[in-house]
Amino acid sequence: MNPNRAAVEEAARFFREHDRFLVLSHVNPDGDATGSALGVVLMLEQLGKEYVVVNEGETPLKFDFLPRFDRLRNLRKQPLTEMFEAVIAVDCADESRMGDVRPLFASGAAVLNIDHHPTNDMFGTVNLVRPEAAATAEILFEVAEEAGIAFNEELALCIYTGLLTDTGGFRYSNTTPRVMEIAARLLTYGVKPGEVAERCLEEITFAHVKILRRALQTLQLSHQNLVASICVSVDDFAEAEAKREDAGGLVNYCRNIEGVEVGVSFVESEPGIVKVSMRARDRVDVSAVAKQLGGGGHAKASGCTVKGTIAEAKQKVWDVLEPALGVKHDE
Amino acid sequence: MNPNRAAVEEAARFFREHDRFLVLSHVNPDGDATGSALGVVLMLEQLGKEYVVVNEGETPLKFDFLPRFDRLRNLRKQPLTEMFEAVIAVDCADESRMGDVRPLFASGAAVLNIDHHPTNDMFGTVNLVRPEAAATAEILFEVAEEAGIAFNEELALCIYTGLLTDTGGFRYSNTTPRVMEIAARLLTYGVKPGEVAERCLEEITFAHVKILRRALQTLQLSHQNLVASICVSVDDFAEAEAKREDAGGLVNYCRNIEGVEVGVSFVESEPGIVKVSMRARDRVDVSAVAKQLGGGGHAKASGCTVKGTIAEAKQKVWDVLEPALGVKHDE
Ligand SMILES: [Mn+2]
Ligand SMILES: [Mn+2]
Repeated sequence: MNPNRAAVEEAARFFREHDRFLVLSHVNPDGDATGSALGVVLMLEQLGKEYVVVNEGETPLKFDFLPRFDRLRNLRKQPLTEMFEAVIAVDCADESRMGDVRPLFASGAAVLNIDHHPTNDMFGTVNLVRPEAAATAEILFEVAEEAGIAFNEELALCIYTGLLTDTGGFRYSNTTPRVMEIAARLLTYGVKPGEVAERCLEEITFAHVKILRRALQTLQLSHQNLVASICVSVDDFAEAEAKREDAGGLVNYCRNIEGVEVGVSFVESEPGIVKVSMRARDRVDVSAVAKQLGGGGHAKASGCTVKGTIAEAKQKVWDVLEPALGVKHDE
Repeated sequence: MNPNRAAVEEAARFFREHDRFLVLSHVNPDGDATGSALGVVLMLEQLGKEYVVVNEGETPLKFDFLPRFDRLRNLRKQPLTEMFEAVIAVDCADESRMGDVRPLFASGAAVLNIDHHPTNDMFGTVNLVRPEAAATAEILFEVAEEAGIAFNEELALCIYTGLLTDTGGFRYSNTTPRVMEIAARLLTYGVKPGEVAERCLEEITFAHVKILRRALQTLQLSHQNLVASICVSVDDFAEAEAKREDAGGLVNYCRNIEGVEVGVSFVESEPGIVKVSMRARDRVDVSAVAKQLGGGGHAKASGCTVKGTIAEAKQKVWDVLEPALGVKHDE
């Protein structure tokens, strides 16, 4: 038997062997964390088990279309004194990712660790960790099948949400044939892919639109139109009443312009600190550019933090980017 | 044998029975038309057949990542005098969709019509028309399997492009389990889903960004923040040096704002003519609103054309929308 199969069986046994569970995911939960946690909850309900499902903090309201969303307990608002003998943690690479939930574990608690992060430190008493999985939800699908759970629209929706969000809408390189096969199975239970995408991927905040509106005023093509860049200052954040996360994705507008090879956003997170994000198409490895400036990332998506004004940060990035691109600044 | 199976076999026979083919799709070709036409071309090459692949006009350069893109002949620039005994038309509901290509058909030509439009008028001598298919590319996949074609990355890329674009990135309601299953198969041949999506779905024109920049200045929440609207004037088009199509998708920015039920864009296509697009979430059927103003569409996506200024168009839409929404204007 392959070791993966054995681990899946052991995880399924974990669901059956205990009676009352603490279910949790990671702080600032994303679609995979929330979908997987609520997927576990639905599986436990089907097995007639008791559970409490928690997060250290708040779960974004955009996920409120998921079944049992109202059962998610925000420990900051509703602390818990009970201690649990059985814990299921999903999408957590290590215990620090869970936030302050350790006091809820009874001493010697059995902990099932279901995750897909390559950095997972095997904190569980049972570890089902598969870095080749696109999402924790993908692994949960296998566990549910192994445990003989009857799939229905609700469970399918939870798992689909994890797959969709962790693959960026079936676009990241982790979108394997297996991901698509599972998605195909889940659609047979009535999941509406457009509605899930609308909620998880397309929804934007009004503050984002306001930041975008200001940022677009700064959009500039340079380097023979091969580079598009955009800037956001601390004043922009103040006037748009926006938070840091509302500026997410701005760099994509730059990279997505036809003919552009490299998109760059310069976001002043506090006076004198500029967060630089870079997205590349084919010609340049932007992780090499970011590394020279003390950052990192992948060939097509990287970032670094530069001290100084936005103008100074721009100059520093151009100095490193120009030799890589083979084109000089041309304003 | 089910009639669908028989039609697929007949289509596969069509590929084998003739030696030289005219391959075509529809005017203003989209990803399904182009992917399917070039998919047919790759199948013909594998079968050792000769072909000319044409379009009445230009094929958008965004599809130049598709194999054999350089073989697509633009008839307006390179007219053709040859007449063909065998024609394969993909993604065309009727002959008028093909543009001015009829003179290339020999009298009594055999015409294979592969399409998924419910309005298809069965113009072919062989008709493989399946309205339940999400894309013509989905049908072509079945024909290729039936014809014993060896799948490889190039053919898979053509078919995947058709599936991806006609389902809006696997988000429209035509995204069936079968679509996902075929996508899973295609990925096994090396298709990179992120790269296809980047080219077909994410690329924007600089003119679009300039129109967006101007339009966002007009973005307004109204009706207790349930409605978001955006306006583009003829002056905006002039100053952004933008074409009508560069304003596509603006209404989505409105609908995607969290809490918004209805997004509306008012685009002045010429002085005194305002094109209204509406997108709804759950509470309102915007096709009913559009119908009252002489337009049409679906419950969640509709449009109409209103004479007058943008301000007058806005008032007309609010007058119809407010009773449907149950909320009055609150500026
Ligand atoms: Mn994950
Ligand atoms: Mn089509």
